[in-house]
Amino acid sequence: MKADTMDTTANKDEEEMGSTVCQADSFRYTPIGIVRSPFTDTAGMPIQPAGAKGVRGTIALRPDLKAGLADLKGFSHIILIYAFHRSKGYSLEVTPFLDTARHGVFATRAPKRPNAIGISIVRLIAVEENVLIIENVDLLDGTPLLDIKPYVPAFDAFSDAKAGWLDQTAGNAESARADERFR
Amino acid sequence: MKADTMDTTANKDEEEMGSTVCQADSFRYTPIGIVRSPFTDTAGMPIQPAGAKGVRGTIALRPDLKAGLADLKGFSHIILIYAFHRSKGYSLEVTPFLDTARHGVFATRAPKRPNAIGISIVRLIAVEENVLIIENVDLLDGTPLLDIKPYVPAFDAFSDAKAGWLDQTAGNAESARADERFR
Repeated sequence: MKADTMDTTANKDEEEMGSTVCQADSFRYTPIGIVRSPFTDTAGMPIQPAGAKGVRGTIALRPDLKAGLADLKGFSHIILIYAFHRSKGYSLEVTPFLDTARHGVFATRAPKRPNAIGISIVRLIAVEENVLIIENVDLLDGTPLLDIKPYVPAFDAFSDAKAGWLDQTAGNAESARADERFR
Repeated sequence: MKADTMDTTANKDEEEMGSTVCQADSFRYTPIGIVRSPFTDTAGMPIQPAGAKGVRGTIALRPDLKAGLADLKGFSHIILIYAFHRSKGYSLEVTPFLDTARHGVFATRAPKRPNAIGISIVRLIAVEENVLIIENVDLLDGTPLLDIKPYVPAFDAFSDAKAGWLDQTAGNAESARADERFR
């Protein structure tokens, strides 16, 4: 697994310089923008977009990437991939917000995961230059954004999927709020 | 945007060492495992899980992370987040496999994006120790896996979402195959 992909990262320089500071078999991503939301603290935050209905936020995309937004405004929903930048360390078994039992971290969306990457599907309201207006925002203000992908029902909507332990509790996501356990 | 999150990465060491080799405002992720699939070359690959129905693959999770898989087997689908490790550089406007017109890269799933991160929703067949058997695999053999999340219809299924230019063409994803344009 050689990290030979990221022309936009420091990997190339690291290899050229023969530095041993950074591991070779890892991937480095520089944020493409930043999320602005009403949530400045994790405590009390909605834990899923379902619990953040109508909550507005914005994405300030890096101005040099603006051309990448062409044609995005035809999509009603977008997938945000971002860094859980306030999450420290990880646990392999966690008690998520929606349950009182412990589950493997990969069977949850908890932020304290080996790679603290989050995804949220939000509603896209408008695209104005390099700024996106979004709704149903369950992200912390200042969240570093790594990627935006269009949400496509043909690829992404499996309404009959079985959701394990979450089949019993996912409906509670609308009312559940974050507390301090995943800081 | 300070990279203060990744206890599992080299960031902390870099900061402590005061190295200038790596940028501070980026995020480094070490793969949690590797995807095995029948596809050893991008040319001719399915471009979406919809085009890879029944194609089996495996995920070899790092053995030290095995406990994180507890309770995952109750889910019929999982979201894989991975590095497009063969993708080099990026374009802000691309002509995706499903269209003949150019679109902003963030309105596509094309691999040549500022941060070459991919997501695929695959069917989970079995969990055997640290190995997952998966189906509908549209990933290249050897793909470095960054995260696994459970697919939850209550969070992820918006069957009535509008998919912009892809509303006309997403149905073709079942038959479309990759070519060399995104290498």
